[in-house]
Amino acid sequence: MESQSLTTTDGFLKENERLDDLQRNGYRIIQNPDKFCFGMDAVLLSGFARVKRGENVLDLGTGTGIIPILLEAKTQASHLTGLEIQEESADMARRSVRLNHLEDKIDIVTGDIKEAELIFKAASFDVVTSNPPYMIGRHGIANPDAPKAIARHELLCTLDDVVRSAAKLLKPGGSFFMVHRPFRLAEIINVMTGYRLEPKRMRLVYPYADKEPNMVLIEGCRGGKPRMTVEKPLIVHKAPNVYTDEICEKYCF
Amino acid sequence: MESQSLTTTDGFLKENERLDDLQRNGYRIIQNPDKFCFGMDAVLLSGFARVKRGENVLDLGTGTGIIPILLEAKTQASHLTGLEIQEESADMARRSVRLNHLEDKIDIVTGDIKEAELIFKAASFDVVTSNPPYMIGRHGIANPDAPKAIARHELLCTLDDVVRSAAKLLKPGGSFFMVHRPFRLAEIINVMTGYRLEPKRMRLVYPYADKEPNMVLIEGCRGGKPRMTVEKPLIVHKAPNVYTDEICEKYCF
Repeated sequence: MESQSLTTTDGFLKENERLDDLQRNGYRIIQNPDKFCFGMDAVLLSGFARVKRGENVLDLGTGTGIIPILLEAKTQASHLTGLEIQEESADMARRSVRLNHLEDKIDIVTGDIKEAELIFKAASFDVVTSNPPYMIGRHGIANPDAPKAIARHELLCTLDDVVRSAAKLLKPGGSFFMVHRPFRLAEIINVMTGYRLEPKRMRLVYPYADKEPNMVLIEGCRGGKPRMTVEKPLIVHKAPNVYTDEICEKYCF
Repeated sequence: MESQSLTTTDGFLKENERLDDLQRNGYRIIQNPDKFCFGMDAVLLSGFARVKRGENVLDLGTGTGIIPILLEAKTQASHLTGLEIQEESADMARRSVRLNHLEDKIDIVTGDIKEAELIFKAASFDVVTSNPPYMIGRHGIANPDAPKAIARHELLCTLDDVVRSAAKLLKPGGSFFMVHRPFRLAEIINVMTGYRLEPKRMRLVYPYADKEPNMVLIEGCRGGKPRMTVEKPLIVHKAPNVYTDEICEKYCF
């Protein structure tokens, strides 16, 4: 991704914001590096998620809208909605949607994941995605109101909130796709199974072939039967600063 | 492993049985290829399990005793017990124990995992290991009494039986080590957590670096807190019939 400053974006960018090229369909995204920028996790989730033609998608905790924008580029989804509790992030996401002329395809809604069942109709989405906060508790957080803290720590919503909302909002047979940290895998599987989002597919992301995984991509099916596929490892680097062929080919870095 | 036929084993071997060198401490094991021979899974489990000096170990469904014999060679366990429901396998295991002069270190008990709580004292083991049957149901089983079918399919005990027994027989803080199939990972984690054997460590075994894993090694701690380590991938082959360095170094194949 390269930062750009184009005169055609006049009026789109606020102070300290920048525009990043997503290298997909010419799409760009507005981000503020002082607040929060999307990471590899969001990009890998957009590659892991399977969205069929005509399906409608909800992204829980969408931040600056990276996942709906990438999924719009990569899939034949009929419509995508991003739910974000932080108005400042939601505002950036809305401006990115307008900048990419995607107003007809993507809605950004300001709201709380814990109240998602009230905001949207139950069993109304084919696909729910989420790249939720990974960290438990408030240890070491200097400023719990900071956007980065809210995006990374379970300050405003927990894993249980995300999975419960996803289960309520998905149609029977609908698919849930999440990226998270492997150290919480047992909890992830317990919570998903508890809400009848049966884990069906999982892929571990290893920074190097000989290192512990630092991300887990997981798919659940609402009301699915037990039996899951664990996919081949997704290795990110073959050498320091050199991506593996799979990462280069699929994710355009 | 090489098959051998030594005159010093006269009286140890019955018809159709053979003796395999375990390449550890000079230990050998009696097997009958018509019934069931141990596989890579048992060997990898013996490398994954962590047994401290002086600990006592129980292996649930020990078959011909491969796991207690390998753990006796690799660890400083004070005592090891193997529980096996099939008298024919238990008899082979007992003869292997005698052949290796391990009568003081290893007991082989004929009995049912479902009744393990009655056979042994509750909370009396530091470590429980198991390489249980992987397959659900009876599909495609021509002869459900055959030793191979009993070892591979959940005919005489289920995953739930194994984990429940392990949880009852382990001391608080004791460790459970199991090898299983990744397609049952969600169920494994749910059952372990349900019996308060918190999953703490997991390693996926991939036949090749670019293939789906075909085994999962998992460690639980009785009464442990949630948070697990997923270890680096264990890759078995670097080319057809060529083991990776890790397999060669650690497992002496």
